Amino acid sequence: MVRNSFDKELEHLHGLMVKMSALVEESIENSVIAFKKQDVSLAKQVFESDDTIDDMESKIEKICINLIARQQPLAKDLRAISTALKIITDMERIADHAADIAELTIRMADLKQVKPLIDIPLMADLAKKMVTKSIDSYVKHDIALAKEVCNSDDAVDNLFSKIVLELINIMKNNPETVEQATDYMFIVKYLERIGDHATNIAEWVVFNVTGSHDHLARKNE
Amino acid sequence: MVRNSFDKELEHLHGLMVKMSALVEESIENSVIAFKKQDVSLAKQVFESDDTIDDMESKIEKICINLIARQQPLAKDLRAISTALKIITDMERIADHAADIAELTIRMADLKQVKPLIDIPLMADLAKKMVTKSIDSYVKHDIALAKEVCNSDDAVDNLFSKIVLELINIMKNNPETVEQATDYMFIVKYLERIGDHATNIAEWVVFNVTGSHDHLARKNE
Repeated sequence: MVRNSFDKELEHLHGLMVKMSALVEESIENSVIAFKKQDVSLAKQVFESDDTIDDMESKIEKICINLIARQQPLAKDLRAISTALKIITDMERIADHAADIAELTIRMADLKQVKPLIDIPLMADLAKKMVTKSIDSYVKHDIALAKEVCNSDDAVDNLFSKIVLELINIMKNNPETVEQATDYMFIVKYLERIGDHATNIAEWVVFNVTGSHDHLARKNE
Repeated sequence: MVRNSFDKELEHLHGLMVKMSALVEESIENSVIAFKKQDVSLAKQVFESDDTIDDMESKIEKICINLIARQQPLAKDLRAISTALKIITDMERIADHAADIAELTIRMADLKQVKPLIDIPLMADLAKKMVTKSIDSYVKHDIALAKEVCNSDDAVDNLFSKIVLELINIMKNNPETVEQATDYMFIVKYLERIGDHATNIAEWVVFNVTGSHDHLARKNE
């Protein structure tokens, strides 16, 4: 009976996490569409979503803590809930970075873009897929999928390095672009961080399933 | 009796958090000294500390979760422990950023510095003090001190804007510095983030004491 009610509460928790993740994915996507199309109203929408996501994080967190306190779960269940607590922190940070991109988008809305935006949306798309898969892997206890996420991080990092080099060349050859290209630099940095957070989530999933927390895709950290 | 043992465990927890915080503060300081003096071995030391800090985070986290599960604490105590869980996440991120600075320091170790390093160490010092005070305010339940931390964030943000503008001018006037100045830009961004994380910690402290979580110093987030 208690077991049953615990499982139900866990299911409810997972449902909320999937909802939160859908909002986070939408924010990543919208932040980069707004950046590409210089769409200030869409960028503002990303800002508003960030508040909703923050509220969801608080709500899920409360549910987790109360679940631990009321049900006194043992090893495996305790791990599942502490994993959920870690995952929502990473998701909230991802949404913050989407809002950071939106902020820079609003600031640059009237300026001519310094380069064609092809790689940046590609990078955002990869990062977004990593987030989707990482949450999927949590809900389905799918280690293979979690490892796939960790492996994808290299592609995001490579795009990051490629775009940074390109921006450095643009700045060297056209010093008048420096101010704006610096903002582009921060935007790709935020996208790279989003990939890192998705990797964190995937690592928590491996911890949840196996009980040991390897830094699968981290090099020097 | 139970109350007594709970208080003892909480005291033990606070002791560990203060130790973790001391390591984090040292990392911030060392990362910027290493950057200023182009000291590769000190930068490597910051890297190694990051592993120790990660381990401390895991250890404290386990203690928190087990404390909730075993003791079934009620409102106030539950809040204290969930606050601790949030705080250590922010502390771990701060240490990550110190390691990020160390990484760039190693990369630029053989290059002539693009500007005199006065404001950046000043910014690091402010950020470090914010971290110290934020942990102090948690242990002492000191809301006034927590609010002081939130107010200090403006000084860090102002230094950030000032240094970024300066770097933009350096890049415009000396395009050959662009590559390196971009790394400086990321370094000051990491310091600005450290200030944000200290502000987060201070906000958690206010939540812990008052039970309500206002974003005291956040503007648009």
